[in-house]
Amino acid sequence: MPRIAGPCGVVIFGVTGDLARKKLMPAIYDLANRGLLPPSFALVGFARRDWADEDFGQVVYEAVQQHARTPFRQEVWDRLAEGFRFVQGTFDDDAAFERLAETLNKLDAERGTGGNHAFYLSIPPKAFPVVCEQLQKSGLARPQEDRWSRVVIEKPFGHDLASARELNAVVNSVFPEESVFRIDHYLGKETVQNILALRFANELYEPIWNAHYVDHVQITMAEDIGLGGRAGYYDGIGAARDVIQNHLIQLLALTAMEEPVSFGPHELQAEKIKVLSATRPLQPLNLTSARGQYSAGWQGNEKVPGLLDEGGFSPESTTETFAAITLEVDTRRWAGVPFFLRTGKRLPRRVTEVALVFKRAPHLPFDSTMTEELGKNALVLRIQPDEGITMRFGSKVPGSAMEVRDVNMDFSYGSAFAEDSPEAYERLILDVLLGEPSLFPVNAEVELSWKILDPVLDAWAGQGRPEPYESGTWGPPSAFEMVHRLDREWRRP
Amino acid sequence: MPRIAGPCGVVIFGVTGDLARKKLMPAIYDLANRGLLPPSFALVGFARRDWADEDFGQVVYEAVQQHARTPFRQEVWDRLAEGFRFVQGTFDDDAAFERLAETLNKLDAERGTGGNHAFYLSIPPKAFPVVCEQLQKSGLARPQEDRWSRVVIEKPFGHDLASARELNAVVNSVFPEESVFRIDHYLGKETVQNILALRFANELYEPIWNAHYVDHVQITMAEDIGLGGRAGYYDGIGAARDVIQNHLIQLLALTAMEEPVSFGPHELQAEKIKVLSATRPLQPLNLTSARGQYSAGWQGNEKVPGLLDEGGFSPESTTETFAAITLEVDTRRWAGVPFFLRTGKRLPRRVTEVALVFKRAPHLPFDSTMTEELGKNALVLRIQPDEGITMRFGSKVPGSAMEVRDVNMDFSYGSAFAEDSPEAYERLILDVLLGEPSLFPVNAEVELSWKILDPVLDAWAGQGRPEPYESGTWGPPSAFEMVHRLDREWRRP
Repeated sequence: MPRIAGPCGVVIFGVTGDLARKKLMPAIYDLANRGLLPPSFALVGFARRDWADEDFGQVVYEAVQQHARTPFRQEVWDRLAEGFRFVQGTFDDDAAFERLAETLNKLDAERGTGGNHAFYLSIPPKAFPVVCEQLQKSGLARPQEDRWSRVVIEKPFGHDLASARELNAVVNSVFPEESVFRIDHYLGKETVQNILALRFANELYEPIWNAHYVDHVQITMAEDIGLGGRAGYYDGIGAARDVIQNHLIQLLALTAMEEPVSFGPHELQAEKIKVLSATRPLQPLNLTSARGQYSAGWQGNEKVPGLLDEGGFSPESTTETFAAITLEVDTRRWAGVPFFLRTGKRLPRRVTEVALVFKRAPHLPFDSTMTEELGKNALVLRIQPDEGITMRFGSKVPGSAMEVRDVNMDFSYGSAFAEDSPEAYERLILDVLLGEPSLFPVNAEVELSWKILDPVLDAWAGQGRPEPYESGTWGPPSAFEMVHRLDREWRRP
Repeated sequence: MPRIAGPCGVVIFGVTGDLARKKLMPAIYDLANRGLLPPSFALVGFARRDWADEDFGQVVYEAVQQHARTPFRQEVWDRLAEGFRFVQGTFDDDAAFERLAETLNKLDAERGTGGNHAFYLSIPPKAFPVVCEQLQKSGLARPQEDRWSRVVIEKPFGHDLASARELNAVVNSVFPEESVFRIDHYLGKETVQNILALRFANELYEPIWNAHYVDHVQITMAEDIGLGGRAGYYDGIGAARDVIQNHLIQLLALTAMEEPVSFGPHELQAEKIKVLSATRPLQPLNLTSARGQYSAGWQGNEKVPGLLDEGGFSPESTTETFAAITLEVDTRRWAGVPFFLRTGKRLPRRVTEVALVFKRAPHLPFDSTMTEELGKNALVLRIQPDEGITMRFGSKVPGSAMEVRDVNMDFSYGSAFAEDSPEAYERLILDVLLGEPSLFPVNAEVELSWKILDPVLDAWAGQGRPEPYESGTWGPPSAFEMVHRLDREWRRP
């Protein structure tokens, strides 16, 4: 039984941006095409451009043609497009928000959207306060009893704990916390949600999912691309704030948390908050973390320039494009097990994975020369691409001796299921419309993530330029030293 | 470093039989081709036929051409064939054994085989006493100090505990136990030996390899063929004696035993003996075992006759072609875990596997409707064909609900290793020549296996005809009732 959203309208601020065009508009069409949107649905764009409803419709049409995942069906499109409206204006223009309120009122009457509205702030965080204020003034933020008004915000959720608190205060002064949906699109991925199914629906894994058997955990999100034209967004943010604070710490929370009583949103959040409260960077910070900035190198067969030669960055920029940190989780389950988190741009390949690396078996019955090629067992949750699970363990090498060598056993999510995986944004937008908050980090999680990361960022702030690393390599030497000091090795995913 | 046999000769009794032609001669050629036999090697055939050495050579040549696994190389063949001899005679003919002794002496001198001899008794067990006696009389069984004499025997090792003891007494009166090599060719299979590597070289499996997590164990050897012309051998023996007593109980021992101090033969045997001493059939025997005899049916697209219509069997034959038993292993590790063993002919497919089926996870956080399609986790050791390992566990079904369904994760032995797996007989014959007894069940194991099986055979003896089952099905109804009574289900491998 698919869950179908009730009557409602979605308002996108920042409708001319990349995210709206590549992800949000296509996801809305795909949801409609899968029959998951109600007939009483409206999509309203808000931007500075001087567009009529038809111009906006044309922009959505092109976005859908280029980026939708499901086939184009004229009748679905026609029904959806009847609910498209555009409101021209700037964020500080009271009249524009009055027009927006009128437009939504009219849609409620004509289209039957029932006074339920989701406001998607696909805009820079510095514009959040003014938009929230305008939504409050126009009465859109706090609707009547039986109607709902929700706000969707995208990262960055601040750039440290203090600014995150400030931002949350602004948003929460207008929208109560239960109406705030923070998007971490990683949590919309099937493979991320599967971490919970894997751990708690099976008898095989949970018994070894603890410090008795796990030696350490590696959480990697590697990108093979550089920054190209995104200097404006990225300079001053860097890899740790862009990826570790949200995606990787959320992956850690799902991997390390205790079993919740249910997958209800409060029960799940309670466990994530509990484990994040117990998580902190391993000391001393200068030896347990690493940061780097890519220099020129080779990406496959292509020669690529360094960050500072690409333009857009100040030659003194201390923004890191690679970050690695070591966390400890002080719970009975994980005490003593290092969690290594790393992310970077211009690494050898695009891959995201969570790897539990197990302790070495004692090998008592084996002749030591027979286990030389045997590493540590690993259970790897492959988040993207090539979604699935890999188990790495030792198997007998064919022949007359009891020689053991590492082999891989694979499960591929794509080939196991005929069902199509919904795109993360589809799943998350539908959850917003359904008022289903499980996959959205709450305020407390965001603040705890900054509390974990802030000491590292502070330590880095006094260190000047990040260490350069050649494009197409797995990061700077300090990233390797960081794990070697603890007698561990990075996997080559 | 491959281990190479030292100077020696192999004498095959029963050289005109199927086993010699299909397995033993090709294995000897393959060993030579892999460089694992010494230059000083001889192969002597002993049979009633009136053959010259050349005729015997021609028989070996044809066997090698038809059944060897490695490519034919003339120079290897020529070198090997120089050591072929044939001795004509019957087992009760003293003169024949004198000729055999002379032939071997001459080979020691001419070929340098050093007085070391393996006697392969590829003959019916009723002929063991006379051959052993002749070998003793001719002085071949007990050589001088620095030389060795070994005897290789094939199953059946008796047909119950009493007859096994008798047989062992006969053999051991001539050959000391350390010179007796009992072939259970299953133990020569890579995948069987890999059970030990898997369990003890890894950290992943041993923590869940016990009654806390394992619900029950299923050990299956299914054949899709019928008896055809083998009635003479099979009538009066049946499936339990032919397969369970040796192959399946050995698989149980490797699966259930504790970790040995080393893989040295004595250490390994000690653990197998220990676990077999703790193993017994679950009571009451009439409800925890099942036996059947195949009737006509369909094997794939082919209509096949029932056992009694094939000829060779008495119409009153009570010989079972399907046998299933339930064993319990009274150790701290396994108390309360049923071990279901089954074997049969004319089943739907040819497959041998050991499946550890795990307890159901408690599923507390899941909505019960979401886990309806979730079975029990299983770890399946695939012995043949398609050698490898399968893990079966629950994974999230793509979509917006936390629905969980069983999936398989596979490891294939063949695709993981470039190394060629030696055929079981190659491995075992080489081990005989090397005097490496690890893979050969000793006397005590054989007797313990009968001790486990005898009560079931006794119970069956009073029950008349086995229950018929249609060819191409998974055995008689009683086999299903046997597991249903304990709230379990057979896997469909």
